[in-house]
Amino acid sequence: MSNPGLLNELVAALRCLPGVGPKSAQRMAFHLLQRDRDAGRHLARVMAEAMERIGRCRQCRTLSEHALCATCASPKRDASLLCVVEQPSDIAAIEQATDYRGLYFVLGGRLSPLDGIGPEELHLDLLRHRLHEGGVSEAILAISPTVEGSATAHYITGIAEGSPVRITRIAHGVPLGGELELVDGGTLAHAFAGRTHL
Amino acid sequence: MSNPGLLNELVAALRCLPGVGPKSAQRMAFHLLQRDRDAGRHLARVMAEAMERIGRCRQCRTLSEHALCATCASPKRDASLLCVVEQPSDIAAIEQATDYRGLYFVLGGRLSPLDGIGPEELHLDLLRHRLHEGGVSEAILAISPTVEGSATAHYITGIAEGSPVRITRIAHGVPLGGELELVDGGTLAHAFAGRTHL
Repeated sequence: MSNPGLLNELVAALRCLPGVGPKSAQRMAFHLLQRDRDAGRHLARVMAEAMERIGRCRQCRTLSEHALCATCASPKRDASLLCVVEQPSDIAAIEQATDYRGLYFVLGGRLSPLDGIGPEELHLDLLRHRLHEGGVSEAILAISPTVEGSATAHYITGIAEGSPVRITRIAHGVPLGGELELVDGGTLAHAFAGRTHL
Repeated sequence: MSNPGLLNELVAALRCLPGVGPKSAQRMAFHLLQRDRDAGRHLARVMAEAMERIGRCRQCRTLSEHALCATCASPKRDASLLCVVEQPSDIAAIEQATDYRGLYFVLGGRLSPLDGIGPEELHLDLLRHRLHEGGVSEAILAISPTVEGSATAHYITGIAEGSPVRITRIAHGVPLGGELELVDGGTLAHAFAGRTHL
């Protein structure tokens, strides 16, 4: 036994992090113990606190330590725009890349009956209520263009019926800077069918 | 602000881990919070405990939660063999790759006067005592073949003088499976000079 007891336990526990295999976990454990115990203590404290205190925003269901997240609580955001995403990480990506100033709704996944993910798991009742209570003029669906994502988008279009909300979807096509010959056939066919006037 | 407060803090704290940049840190935080809070809680607990309880073995100076590490305490190890390494992670590598059954001594680095690392920082007094107290018949130096590593090996040979300990060094040369044309010149020259009779 070269890594007895607690050290072994730390290496094993670090493997719960995505992308961390046995070698990286060992490197991380040795690094913290030999060079940066204060950072290790700080990380342990923040992680324990985050696991207990971070919940879901009651309005948009993103991860938040408050009942209402900072975005939903901000008076600077345009409440007439609602962007529907799958995951909280999608919000971070959109905030970094675009100048979108509206609000969000986080589904937490895609409709997938085989995996037991139905409208209830995605809290679509909450979304329905949001679309019908007034105040939202456009709902932008930023959902992955997979089969399940398309089914989810179709379902949301359905629950918006009877409300004045305009449902839009972000464009899917050839990525910027992408070589046509390297793009997969499905994307290319989709881009062709969805061509726009110049 | 898409990652307010505590979530931001967790992402920032995760970056103390080696090899973790802003993107991976965010992915790790979201993964733990959305999919595996129990693993996150467990990791936080083990990490906090490890940072407090893991110290150095008083005999070999490897990381250990006990005053005497499991290897030094084991009656099954051959106490007449002492392998001198730079880091505790080197022990793990040797244990996995070889059938070495002796004991270890961890320097914690290499002599490097410019960085303020002298004989004291490497606890070479402890090593000198160990070599001269009797019981050790061979000390195997498994130190990196860098300039500083060679200086350290030379220094250790010096402090062993007057003791009956035989000082050996692990072989340095072309790695197994290595293509000659891809090996750096220094290694190749070293391998040439150190050729052995077949």
